[in-house]
Amino acid sequence: MVQRFEQVAGSVTAPRGFRAAGIACGIKANGRPDLALIVSDAEASAAAVFTTNLAQAAPVLVSRDHLRRSGGQARAVVVNSGCANACTGADGMRDAAQMAARAAQALGVDPAGVLVASTGVIGVKLNMAVVARGIGEAARSLSPDGGPSAARAIMTTDPFPKEAAVEVRHHAGAFRVGGIAKGSGMIEPLMATMLGFVTLDARVGPALLQRALKAAVDETFNAITVDGECSTNDCVFALANGASGVTLVDEDLPLLVEALRAVCEPLAVGIVRGGEGATKLVTVRVTGAASGDEARRAARAIANSPLVKTAIHGADPNWGRLVAVMGRSGAAFALDRAAVRIGGIELFRDGTPYDDRAPAAADYLAGRDIEIEVDLGTGGDGRSHMWTCDLSADYVRINAEYRT
Amino acid sequence: MVQRFEQVAGSVTAPRGFRAAGIACGIKANGRPDLALIVSDAEASAAAVFTTNLAQAAPVLVSRDHLRRSGGQARAVVVNSGCANACTGADGMRDAAQMAARAAQALGVDPAGVLVASTGVIGVKLNMAVVARGIGEAARSLSPDGGPSAARAIMTTDPFPKEAAVEVRHHAGAFRVGGIAKGSGMIEPLMATMLGFVTLDARVGPALLQRALKAAVDETFNAITVDGECSTNDCVFALANGASGVTLVDEDLPLLVEALRAVCEPLAVGIVRGGEGATKLVTVRVTGAASGDEARRAARAIANSPLVKTAIHGADPNWGRLVAVMGRSGAAFALDRAAVRIGGIELFRDGTPYDDRAPAAADYLAGRDIEIEVDLGTGGDGRSHMWTCDLSADYVRINAEYRT
Repeated sequence: MVQRFEQVAGSVTAPRGFRAAGIACGIKANGRPDLALIVSDAEASAAAVFTTNLAQAAPVLVSRDHLRRSGGQARAVVVNSGCANACTGADGMRDAAQMAARAAQALGVDPAGVLVASTGVIGVKLNMAVVARGIGEAARSLSPDGGPSAARAIMTTDPFPKEAAVEVRHHAGAFRVGGIAKGSGMIEPLMATMLGFVTLDARVGPALLQRALKAAVDETFNAITVDGECSTNDCVFALANGASGVTLVDEDLPLLVEALRAVCEPLAVGIVRGGEGATKLVTVRVTGAASGDEARRAARAIANSPLVKTAIHGADPNWGRLVAVMGRSGAAFALDRAAVRIGGIELFRDGTPYDDRAPAAADYLAGRDIEIEVDLGTGGDGRSHMWTCDLSADYVRINAEYRT
Repeated sequence: MVQRFEQVAGSVTAPRGFRAAGIACGIKANGRPDLALIVSDAEASAAAVFTTNLAQAAPVLVSRDHLRRSGGQARAVVVNSGCANACTGADGMRDAAQMAARAAQALGVDPAGVLVASTGVIGVKLNMAVVARGIGEAARSLSPDGGPSAARAIMTTDPFPKEAAVEVRHHAGAFRVGGIAKGSGMIEPLMATMLGFVTLDARVGPALLQRALKAAVDETFNAITVDGECSTNDCVFALANGASGVTLVDEDLPLLVEALRAVCEPLAVGIVRGGEGATKLVTVRVTGAASGDEARRAARAIANSPLVKTAIHGADPNWGRLVAVMGRSGAAFALDRAAVRIGGIELFRDGTPYDDRAPAAADYLAGRDIEIEVDLGTGGDGRSHMWTCDLSADYVRINAEYRT
């Protein structure tokens, strides 16, 4: 296959016709950046994937409403960190709507064309005086090089910003896709305290963009876990403004999904690598499942198992814990035809342990990028993958002291 | 209601006609007790609840087989700690059968009348020379006061033994129920690396005993979690030998369930209190669910949430994390009519936080016995409970270093 994707610098501002800014407006007591604005110079198609949590934060509800009212069009995304604006009742709904209204006013666009996202502590109200001032300042700071500052402004406990961008060759020309994301606790497969923002300069109808975004998110942001938690605020937004002159149609769906995936995968993996307390990135690959869904179920159980995650943290090639999780995951499983490989080293197959290989596997586990492969032994061709991290004492420390 | 239960000293040897022993035979390298024998002087009805894990250890498979062959009769239970005899293939099956055969020989009973259980590291074979010698020694050490020594011999990482016994008044006389159990990692609702052994001196048919045991376990051992894991070796056995002269019939089922529950509940709670790294016992009570099953589902999600467990560890009254888990648990949930109470202190109700009460709740969380109550807000009368513990850095340390 011809290489159609080329990594390029920048993130949400790598595609043409997008500007962004990230500033510190005082939501965070420590003075770090806490407000980001991403703006398309022209009307853009918009798509979104939201948290499946039934306790949905005000910005999630407002963004859903705006997308419905605009018919899948948007001009801007306004995001704050340091306060989730979740479980804040009617006041929180009013504040989220005012964030959009204030941004719309500063940009001279329709409020329904502004999407809103928040991340931070649950149950605390936004200080709207500082937020409103901050939105004005961010609007004045917008720049075609503003992606990196926006990536920093959406961080909470993230140890580093997550950015990616690619240029895609299409028969009608080249277009670009860029994105930023943040983690880093309350992360699980079905959307977590996880925000992702993707921009494209291709022209794509909102329905096609939604289909492609959903497919790309399923294999990237929905295939990661830090702690099995799913937050009240998760969302991934995509804006496509057509500034490249390239128009994508239904037949381009596979290319569009791959293009989105090329940006979403490094962002998602970056969230795991920067997970709370994480010292290792772990890729879990499941084969031999009765179906793809069962493979994902087993992969998720392994990726969320505290005993597996602590063993990896301790560089212990404890294949027995992997077998125990395979057996309890709910997926069909045949112990006498199952296999476990760590870093390609087969430690268990067909009921037989190979413990003489444990020292080599322990050496491998001392590294930072860990690959775990398990075969459920059903003979089926279902396969799936998940990215997770190890569970360290630092995860406990971070989360026992989060608000204190 | 008349008090029909009275706590009595002793555990599996409190009921008449039972003897037990716990000895160190050398399975554990550190020389701690690692082999227990529980024997009924007369033929006893036997019932069992086994792990739901599809990777079932050899002793689980052998005990199932023996119960089937004996038609629900047993004379003895032989248990080792320090080695799970799981994922050990055909050799492991032979070893588990030989444990029963060796005990049967020493006791002069039928091998199918001996149940077997093992707990410890997965994937390691038993040293049958030391096990066989140990069974002989345990048989010679049997005593009507041997319950406490058996309770110690089944421990792995447990910080203390778990024992309980009650005397039950029945119109035909008094009978006793006693039990021992061990934890303490890989513990989750659906049976974990958790062994429980219950003796009764009432006469109870095997079918009735099985029904009652299942009902009692559902509300006790199956209502605890330490880390959401479910092991390859879990089992709870009950032996009823009739030595009290009291015969229980189908109409006595509610009394029998209550009697078993009176012993199983303190054992189950003891497992959580002694959970790996645990510093607090947490009781989670869910009300306002659409059904009992949905209430249990929400209770389980809360009890397994690393963010809730770390917040409790840090004495942080973080009701927002509780709301987030309620919203993602899969149970029906109405945010605007939900409530969260910690130690009876209402921190959130009908969409409104009461953060002025947070300092009082933080003081309460500094204690060791924590009660969390949540109302899912559906207006339904479904309710359930779970016991769990906090998640500490010690849990990580214990499990990162388990085999190293």
